[in-house]
Amino acid sequence: MNAPTVILVRPQLVENIGAAARAMMNCNLSELRIVAPRDGWPLVSPQKERAYAAASGADSILESAKLYETTADAVKDLNAVYATTARSRDMIKPVYDPRQAMAEIAPRVAREKIGLLFGPERTGLLNDDLLCAGKIIHIPANPEFSSFNLAQSVLILAYEWLMQATAAPIQEAPPNPNRSRLAAQEEVTRMFEHLEKELDAARFFSTEEMKPTMVLNLRNMFLRAELTDQEVRTFRGVITALTLPPDRKRKHG
Amino acid sequence: MNAPTVILVRPQLVENIGAAARAMMNCNLSELRIVAPRDGWPLVSPQKERAYAAASGADSILESAKLYETTADAVKDLNAVYATTARSRDMIKPVYDPRQAMAEIAPRVAREKIGLLFGPERTGLLNDDLLCAGKIIHIPANPEFSSFNLAQSVLILAYEWLMQATAAPIQEAPPNPNRSRLAAQEEVTRMFEHLEKELDAARFFSTEEMKPTMVLNLRNMFLRAELTDQEVRTFRGVITALTLPPDRKRKHG
Repeated sequence: MNAPTVILVRPQLVENIGAAARAMMNCNLSELRIVAPRDGWPLVSPQKERAYAAASGADSILESAKLYETTADAVKDLNAVYATTARSRDMIKPVYDPRQAMAEIAPRVAREKIGLLFGPERTGLLNDDLLCAGKIIHIPANPEFSSFNLAQSVLILAYEWLMQATAAPIQEAPPNPNRSRLAAQEEVTRMFEHLEKELDAARFFSTEEMKPTMVLNLRNMFLRAELTDQEVRTFRGVITALTLPPDRKRKHG
Repeated sequence: MNAPTVILVRPQLVENIGAAARAMMNCNLSELRIVAPRDGWPLVSPQKERAYAAASGADSILESAKLYETTADAVKDLNAVYATTARSRDMIKPVYDPRQAMAEIAPRVAREKIGLLFGPERTGLLNDDLLCAGKIIHIPANPEFSSFNLAQSVLILAYEWLMQATAAPIQEAPPNPNRSRLAAQEEVTRMFEHLEKELDAARFFSTEEMKPTMVLNLRNMFLRAELTDQEVRTFRGVITALTLPPDRKRKHG
């Protein structure tokens, strides 16, 4: 069965990787990706034994886990990415609780590859990681004590996945011919890079200090829209058209 | 606020007691009872340090936890007890999933003391323990890999408690200072017109017949994103920057 992919970004403790794998297998998730784990990958002794002890039999998930150098690499082929955060941040992305998120994700997985992004134990996801996600999942918690253990966060999402996936037959959204395929994140990123290169050339970014914030706000507008591959091509055509030299344009009517 | 009591029956690993305390505090549960733990209670070094490390700050729950010799003792003053099991057993008790259980428990806690019973890591609850419970909570799981870590089981129940207890006022997305005001459709339309005028000048629309469809597709991308007034201003700045004549731009790096 198709299911979301779990992506652990820079995890510090191998026990948490193992415990996350166990929670995944308990709840019918199987695809694990790991970005730049502190202790490397694949693990060697003694970390390997500690991870497998925590996995408690979910060895196949650890063995098929894939390693990536950056979060951007890890999401390249995915159609949509949901990032989990404990803090609410002033980013312009839709925020879901785990149940709302899975209610949206469950009908999508038949046709789209969906990623769930989890940050490192102490710091959570950084802004650069969040650039790779179109939507935010906020796990509700006691406001005085809101930091979940990494594997516990994975479990809550995995459990909500299981509850959704085993609930009455999932009603799939009718396929929309105009929205046949969501773009892979890689295509969207190339579109951003195209736009940002042209904006740089036009001195759009008033100062170097402001640039990261401005880039973030621009990217968020498009991530929120979840573009199809056709729309990405169209918008790249728009950028190219707008940046044509004047002798190749007609006069405004 | 009144909340259910968590009862760990004969827990083996002190890390699980600590991690259960952390999950409880994350989710606004505070009363912990422990029946005949393998390593005794209160803990001494080095088990104490290991439990507190796993609790990650939920010390107050460990410090106020009460010790009991038997499950029957631990539930004496409670009005109702729900026992968690991974296996389904042929006992004649109502069986709930965690969500159904908390939907029933949440309205009860104002007037009744409710207990949640969790068995030891390897064996789960014995029939004698189940005699102390009126109802069963079955945590759904992958049938091939259904054994949850003890603290993970506690978390799932605690999380469903939190979801129920905080459900009352429908969860609105938190107000986002950057999203203070969605743009008026009029502003969005002016942005579209600005873009389409420049695309016309650049001969972007291959034919007049195709133009209405292409305009519609472009507009839909942006309408889906539900832009704020700030984003509309930003994107109009983008259009202006991209259409600057080349002598006002720098060369591409």
